[in-house]
Parts: sequence; C-alpha cells; structure tokens
Amino acid sequence: MATYRCITFLTDYGLEDGFVAVCHGVVVRLSPATPVIDITHLVPPGDVRRGAAVLAQTVPYLPAGVHVAVVDPGVGTKRRAIALAAGEHVFVGPDNGVLSWAATRQSAGGPQRAYELTNAKLWLEPLSATFHGRDVFIPVAAHLANGMDIAAVGDEVDIDTLVTLPRPTRRIREGGAEGEVLTVDRFGNVQLSIAAADLDRLGVRVDTAIMVTLGRRRLAVPYRETFGAVSPGELVAYLDSVGCVALAVNGGNAAQRLGLPPGAHVRITVGGTDQGVQAD
Amino acid sequence: MATYRCITFLTDYGLEDGFVAVCHGVVVRLSPATPVIDITHLVPPGDVRRGAAVLAQTVPYLPAGVHVAVVDPGVGTKRRAIALAAGEHVFVGPDNGVLSWAATRQSAGGPQRAYELTNAKLWLEPLSATFHGRDVFIPVAAHLANGMDIAAVGDEVDIDTLVTLPRPTRRIREGGAEGEVLTVDRFGNVQLSIAAADLDRLGVRVDTAIMVTLGRRRLAVPYRETFGAVSPGELVAYLDSVGCVALAVNGGNAAQRLGLPPGAHVRITVGGTDQGVQAD
Amino acid sequence: MATYRCITFLTDYGLEDGFVAVCHGVVVRLSPATPVIDITHLVPPGDVRRGAAVLAQTVPYLPAGVHVAVVDPGVGTKRRAIALAAGEHVFVGPDNGVLSWAATRQSAGGPQRAYELTNAKLWLEPLSATFHGRDVFIPVAAHLANGMDIAAVGDEVDIDTLVTLPRPTRRIREGGAEGEVLTVDRFGNVQLSIAAADLDRLGVRVDTAIMVTLGRRRLAVPYRETFGAVSPGELVAYLDSVGCVALAVNGGNAAQRLGLPPGAHVRITVGGTDQGVQAD
Repeated sequence: MATYRCITFLTDYGLEDGFVAVCHGVVVRLSPATPVIDITHLVPPGDVRRGAAVLAQTVPYLPAGVHVAVVDPGVGTKRRAIALAAGEHVFVGPDNGVLSWAATRQSAGGPQRAYELTNAKLWLEPLSATFHGRDVFIPVAAHLANGMDIAAVGDEVDIDTLVTLPRPTRRIREGGAEGEVLTVDRFGNVQLSIAAADLDRLGVRVDTAIMVTLGRRRLAVPYRETFGAVSPGELVAYLDSVGCVALAVNGGNAAQRLGLPPGAHVRITVGGTDQGVQAD
Repeated sequence: MATYRCITFLTDYGLEDGFVAVCHGVVVRLSPATPVIDITHLVPPGDVRRGAAVLAQTVPYLPAGVHVAVVDPGVGTKRRAIALAAGEHVFVGPDNGVLSWAATRQSAGGPQRAYELTNAKLWLEPLSATFHGRDVFIPVAAHLANGMDIAAVGDEVDIDTLVTLPRPTRRIREGGAEGEVLTVDRFGNVQLSIAAADLDRLGVRVDTAIMVTLGRRRLAVPYRETFGAVSPGELVAYLDSVGCVALAVNGGNAAQRLGLPPGAHVRITVGGTDQGVQAD
Repeated sequence: MATYRCITFLTDYGLEDGFVAVCHGVVVRLSPATPVIDITHLVPPGDVRRGAAVLAQTVPYLPAGVHVAVVDPGVGTKRRAIALAAGEHVFVGPDNGVLSWAATRQSAGGPQRAYELTNAKLWLEPLSATFHGRDVFIPVAAHLANGMDIAAVGDEVDIDTLVTLPRPTRRIREGGAEGEVLTVDRFGNVQLSIAAADLDRLGVRVDTAIMVTLGRRRLAVPYRETFGAVSPGELVAYLDSVGCVALAVNGGNAAQRLGLPPGAHVRITVGGTDQGVQAD
C-alpha cells in the first residue's frame, strides 16, 4: 500500500484571503500528522497551463506525496474531479489538464490509474459550488494521506478519457530547434520548451553562441553555464535547473527586455561561428 | 481544560520583512510542538475591518486553536490587548474590533470570557512599543497552546466593554435586500453582506435573474450556482462558499469591472421576470 | 555537539514559482523531522544588502538553527559557498556578504569557524549551475540539522577571507548623529542605522523633537514612543522593535512621503527646544 509523506498544494487562491488557511485547517482536522508543503498559490487566476508547468517541474523534487493542484475556473460545472496514481505519487484536482504534465512525467508509462471523485462521504458538508479545494480535493487528499486506498475515492475511469494539455511545441530540425516560452520566473528568466539535450544533438556546445529568432528579431546570444558568466546587463542562454534552455539577463529581466510571454514562439539555430556575437 | 491543536496567525505584517518569521521563531522557542497556520499576512496596513472579515470567515474551518490577529495601528498606545475565550477557540489580539466578528460567530451567545493581557511575566523582554505581535500576543498564545489557563493572562474584563466593529449593513424589505460589499477576494469576486438565505426569503431562486442597484446603476444579473454557469466575461451572482451572495465575472474581475470597494452600498431586488436579462 | 531545532530560509526566489517548495521537499526527504521557518522569499532579486539586513534582524529571535540565506546573483561562478558556525547558530549560503551581518551579530567575537562547501557527496546530483539552493545549500543544511558535524561540509577557511558587506554609515558627533536608511518595511517605516542609544547619548529624550536632515530638507520631527502618539498623517521618529531610530507616518507611508530608499543619507540633530516643531 502506498504511503505518502506529505500533502503538497498548488492553487491560484492567492495569499491575501483565508482560502489557503482554510484548506490547511481541514488537513489538520482530518490528518493532523501530515505536513503540508505549499508549492505556490500565486498561479494567475484560472491559468491552468501555468499551474501545470509549475507542478510538473516541482514534483520531481518532492517526497512521495499527495499533490493537490486547484486551478479550476470550471468549479461547480460538469468538469470531473479526479485522483491519479502515478509512480509513488498521487495527484488530486480538477480534470482540466492541470495535473496532466506532472502525472505523465512521474510514471514511465503515463498515469497508471485514475478515479473520479464521486464518493461524497469523503467531502465536507454542505458542499459549496465554488470552493472544491476546501470541500472536495483537500478532504480527499487528507484521507489518502491517512492511508485510505485510492479506489475508495470513487469510480475508476479510463485514463485515456482524461483531459490533457497539449505538449508545448518542440521541433528539432537540421541546424535548428523550434519551441515556445514555457514559463517566466520571478527573475524574468525565460524558460523554453527546448531541452539542453536538443542543443547537444544540434552540436551546440556551452561557451559558443547561438542565434535566437523571436518573431522578426534575430539575436546572437552567448550560451554559457550561468548568468554570471556574462557581463551585467547582457543577455545569455543557459541550461536551467530542470534541463531546459533558458534566456536571462545577468542582473536584469529577460522577459521584460525581450517582451516574451509564455507561449511565444522561439527558434534557435547554431550561431557559434559568428565571431561578432561572442560574449567576450 | 481547553486543548488547542494549533496557533493560527493573521496580520498586516506583509511577507517581505522578517516580522512573521520572528513570531514563528518565538512559537518554536516557547511551544515547539504547536503547529502554526498562517491565515494571511497581507491585510492592507491598518485595515482592521478587512482583518476582522477574513478572520471570521476562516476560523469556522480551523481546528480548535489559539487565533492571533494583529492589525494594530494603535500599538503602543492605550488600546487594550486581550484574549477572548469563545466556544472551543481563544482569540488573542488588540481590543480594536479585529477579533469581534470571529469571536461573536464562534459561540452561540457571543464571547464568553475576556481578559486583558496584563501579566507581563508572559511577555518578551524588553517590551517594544511597536511590535506587540512578537513581544505580547505570540508569547501569550504560545503559553495558552502549552495548556496555561486563560485566566493567567491577566485581569478578566467585562465583555460588554470590548470594542466591536459595527456589523455590516443588511436590511431585508419587501421585494428587496440592502447590504454592502463585505470583501473583495483575489479573483475580484465581490462578497455582499446579504446572505443566500435572505434571497431565499425574498423568493429568489437559483437560475432566475436579480436586479442589482449600485449607486445609480441598475444591472440585471443572472443568479446561478457558480461562475462557470455563464459565458466567459459575463457577470453573475452566486452563493459563495461561506453563504453570502457574491458577484463575479466568469474568467474576469467583478470588483474592477463594477468599481466596488469594500463598504460600497448594494441593493438587490427580484428581477427574475425580466426576460431581457436572462443569461442564456 | 550542536543541535539545531530548525532550518530557516531566506531567499530572493519569490513565491510564484516552485523554487521554495522544491527546497522544502529536499528538506523533507533528507531530514523529515526538521521544521522549516521561512524568513522571507521576497528579497528583491539579487539585493544582497537587503537580504543581509533582514537576516541579521530576524535571527536573534529564532531558535538555535541552521539559517540558509540565498541571494546569489553569482551562482555558478567562482564565488564560494560557505557554512559559518557563530554562537548557537550556523549560517549557510554564498560567500557574498549576505550572511556577514547576521553572523557577526550572533557571536561576541564574530564568526567562529567557517567552511567552504566542497564536499560534493552532500549535494544533489546532477548539480545545476543556477539552483544551488536546491542542490547545495539546502542539502548541506539538512545534513547539519541531522547532526552532521560542520567540519564534514568541506575545507575550513580563514574567517578573515570571508566577504563582508560594509557596515552602514553611523557617526555620532557633538550635537548630531549621521547615518543612512537601513531598511524600509512593508508599512513604509524607514529604519535608520542610528541606534536609540545614540540619541540617548546626544541627550535626546522621548517626547521631545529632533531635526532630521535629508539632503537639503530639514524637518522637525517629534520623537515619540510609537506612531499612534502623533495625529494620523503626521511624521514621527520612534525607537523601533530592534533598537534603531525609525521614521514613520501614523497611518501612512514615510518612505513614500519622504522619498527615502535604503542607503539614503540622514542626519539627526537635537531639535527639542524648537517650540514650533512640537507635535502637540
């Protein structure tokens, strides 16, 4: 039987209201010994894709746990509520794709088993129409953390019927890689859907330069180990902490400088031979 | 004797300084086994009414605990510091009304016993003039969580002498209900002081429409179970997760759209017969 | 052998990404019984001085612990990673000065022993170039919290070789004190590098007035116990909760009113005899 060492919690609830604390309170009531790790509650309201990206990149470093993600603009409508067992983890949330990237990543063959949350005995009463984090997802997670079998949450559903977000664009062609902006972090670092391994396959080595095409702009950018390898204020491409190629400005904000929101199209070509673009 | 399972903590201290961590540190020193649940620390500076509203709506979902609320523009002046026993909870904070709504709500007959924090032996030394969260409220809460009798905090005071915030306006008349904006949450959802039960008494049923009067504006608004029941961008009234009528824009921000700050006056009348305003 | 009751954590990682949660997850994996106290994660990106100031002012109220501070614009370059034993505390972070004010303050004679983090066996694999919080600092802290001897983190280094931030300006002359803005807090309260003891030595007593010189402006400011001792909207000087002289506006934001960022030069002279500037 699975044992989970924590509940983790990602939402778009923000930090200025009592919503997150209410959910923590429900955990303490139902499963007092289970620690809760807050992933973030600052997903922009209703931004399912951002929630999915942050969850997928965080979970690999978390202990075996029950991961609750609630970015749920369709709360109270007919969208399903689900629990997915994947590897040593279980994911709980709305079936709108917010769990899909993390669940796929956490098990070799994708999610192993999925259940619709239909067992209303596990929920808080009265059930609200708009706060299923409090009334459904967190109580179910607390019961799972207590050791309840996942099959008790409700009816098993075919995993092929789950809503999945489209994978970000990522195409490797001869001499170049195409992708999109996956996330922008607090520092304004722009994470691309292109993996370091992709650049490797193209023959791009660290300490050369690459050409980055953003719409009509073409920029020669040094490819380095870290931001600090270029001068303050200078643009740099680097391999980020989860294995993606990212763009940064040393001591600055690359997303602002380049005007690159999540989803923007980016192309990288080999540019290391262009002497004029070397960083130093 | 009361046993408390946690300390909860609501302030206007913000998250960019070390103030909240200092208070957590004081708890770990005095009562290491007591978990602390942060309710919010983003109450706008000095906004006692906002603090009172968030506290009152959060506590019903929290375990039996010591609830510390510090929104305290009068810190260091002659305002009293108090502890109130109400139901299975105890509230600790300044006697400026921030505790009043929560304490009233948590016990059938209002606060049961109140004490002024006069026992300086429980406080940190030296006592600062401006950080009573650290020096007075949190240490007292930690001692209470350790099992100290509430009578040890100081002199009992007549609960009728406590500062209470005026209750929000709420008047039910024939054919209509008047109230005010109680809170605006992160999503821009506008919570009214009018209860769902009030609309029920007026004969308003879910899936009809209501007329909402805001100053000189009159808006026909569909009354639905949840935001997602109307089209994206459309205004909707719904029963929120604590039993109040609220206004939302599906996928948008109703407070911004309507320009409705806390305290704004709102009137709701039966409007369900107006065919032109049906949502769909 | 040292025993540490918690790990505390200060960064510029922000709260919208999963970076902080990843680090919490690493602690739960390596040292599940150790509580983590978040000091703040809202240090402005790369602002080492702000991180150092918040850390130094927070630690005195924290239990004996392992204090991890990561404001690290030079991550992945040749800057050292260090652990410093000082008093009952140990500090872990980059050797760029962020630890220096706290470490000096926590032991009579300054940091006692310092080690460079060179024992790669303690780190996560693969080591990223840009997320040493996750891969180096937090794992090392977790091992220390588990009771590992500090000498196991790497090679001892001469404490005189550590990077220290310059102490803030603070000069006491006859009739006046010069200093600078140390921090601005959430309330806009402006903390100066001038201590209350300095004013005391100048013969300034609470409930007199002082002259504050900011660039070319000279302001007569009442010196009081607390904000609430002056009328709403009025400027006041007071002794803050860590022993510094600070400027506030009762119910307002002094930093905005005065345009005083951290580092700005301030001079205080005795002004209590000027009848025209008395507050009341």
